[in-house]
Amino acid sequence: MLLKGLSAFPITPSDAEGRVDVAAVRKLASRLSAAEVDSIGLLGSTGTYAYLTRSERRRALEAALDEVGGQVPVLVGVGALRTDEAVRLAQDAKAAGAAAGLLAPVSYTPLTENEVFEHFATVARESGLSLCIYDNPSTTHFRFSPALIGRLSRLPEIIAVKSPAPEPQAIPRHLAELRSVVPDGFSLGYSVDWNSVEALIAGGHAWYSVLAGLFPRISMALVQAVQNGDAAEARRLNERLDPLWSLFREFSSLRVIYASADLLGICRAEPPRPILPLAGDARQRVADVFKALGLTD
Amino acid sequence: MLLKGLSAFPITPSDAEGRVDVAAVRKLASRLSAAEVDSIGLLGSTGTYAYLTRSERRRALEAALDEVGGQVPVLVGVGALRTDEAVRLAQDAKAAGAAAGLLAPVSYTPLTENEVFEHFATVARESGLSLCIYDNPSTTHFRFSPALIGRLSRLPEIIAVKSPAPEPQAIPRHLAELRSVVPDGFSLGYSVDWNSVEALIAGGHAWYSVLAGLFPRISMALVQAVQNGDAAEARRLNERLDPLWSLFREFSSLRVIYASADLLGICRAEPPRPILPLAGDARQRVADVFKALGLTD
Repeated sequence: MLLKGLSAFPITPSDAEGRVDVAAVRKLASRLSAAEVDSIGLLGSTGTYAYLTRSERRRALEAALDEVGGQVPVLVGVGALRTDEAVRLAQDAKAAGAAAGLLAPVSYTPLTENEVFEHFATVARESGLSLCIYDNPSTTHFRFSPALIGRLSRLPEIIAVKSPAPEPQAIPRHLAELRSVVPDGFSLGYSVDWNSVEALIAGGHAWYSVLAGLFPRISMALVQAVQNGDAAEARRLNERLDPLWSLFREFSSLRVIYASADLLGICRAEPPRPILPLAGDARQRVADVFKALGLTD
Repeated sequence: MLLKGLSAFPITPSDAEGRVDVAAVRKLASRLSAAEVDSIGLLGSTGTYAYLTRSERRRALEAALDEVGGQVPVLVGVGALRTDEAVRLAQDAKAAGAAAGLLAPVSYTPLTENEVFEHFATVARESGLSLCIYDNPSTTHFRFSPALIGRLSRLPEIIAVKSPAPEPQAIPRHLAELRSVVPDGFSLGYSVDWNSVEALIAGGHAWYSVLAGLFPRISMALVQAVQNGDAAEARRLNERLDPLWSLFREFSSLRVIYASADLLGICRAEPPRPILPLAGDARQRVADVFKALGLTD
């Protein structure tokens, strides 16, 4: 299974005009490779793929792939509002050597189930790239039914789904529903950092993690505790991060992780406007939490 | 007041690669000009602005402006995910001679009130274009508070708001709330065709109409009945359109109006993929409704 364990989603540092800082991308990729994460999720939502042009997305991908040199599989966001653009991005990803594409049903006009099916089938067929279904209703405004995931999982290129982890008590049912509709070996993974450790404990295959994009070591420790069968230790480590999860919930993980990259001097980056960097009291609270947790890598 | 009465929102016919059919844009603009609508809302949501490149949007705008030759003010969608791109689109619109821009807070990452304020203020300041606030939560996933509309209405370039019309019984309160926060002369208009006649009767200044983009004459008759103080006649005409409003609700006005343009031979056009043209039974129902209503222009 390609997508399992920890998939680390870094930010994509870029300037005010949307030009990617490839040196910073290399630095972030190198941290992730050194921490031996199971995969890198480049150009995810936190990687601001939706705000970057095709050529800048290609530059970021090529820099990351070159930096990790085959040591870590790279999953890359290939979502776009238009089907033809998503096809081109998936073709770029395949040509560059990405292990798989992460495809979200980005929408402006709300989409129907059949439209999303055809969108995914077209990208799969015309690119030949392995694809992970990116289910993220808070950004795409589309909700996948288990039936649609089941239908998509029959396409040979579609190998995984990344679902937003529900609250812990709802995870076993969510996993059981998906297991009943997908073939064996299909990867069922989760985002939403604060609920993902419970999703791993319940049997989810992968954690698609914003935290790990910047802080892979603590994230690996969490995943390894689960893999060692020590759920109590995983929960202890996870609870220690509660002050950070509170900030993620309040300001979004994207805004908090951008602020922390900057505060800790890992790289200079501001999110693309209209998204504003955290300032004033919010920024100070992020600084305080990182200081208290002692997180640096 | 620039934005009042009937603002007609045509589709933007384009090919499968997103190249605009300027001859078809001219044909649609000419129908609207002949029907003497109060303004044309080019490249609105139904005009698929979000799916077209900056250069294609400029081609569409230049064709429409040239076709109407100053006879009808043209409002044009200048929304984009990135602030810098929205600035460029607004500058293009100003340079081409559009009367105003229609600016929606297009989002991927959900935006805060302050981010939306800064986005609008930047576009206004850097383009100098008159702007209409485009409040359309079903596509942008942002909800304007009356307080934010009030704050934006103080910027000299911001002259109007296009709100989705609520159900009829909620309209007077919605209008009163907005009136209490905007300066005199600020235009309060409504979209959502099936509730807009009631919004006009209640004192709304403008109807931003998908129907009028293809069928300006019946739409003008509705607006004129209201303007003549004959609410009963306006309601009678509006009720006659109930079968069409039902289709708009069920399939979206965009999908229905694309199908009707094609069925009536006005222009050949399919929406940009992933949006699929209506087919089979849905298309037949659109054909039946238009036949029963006898609508042709």
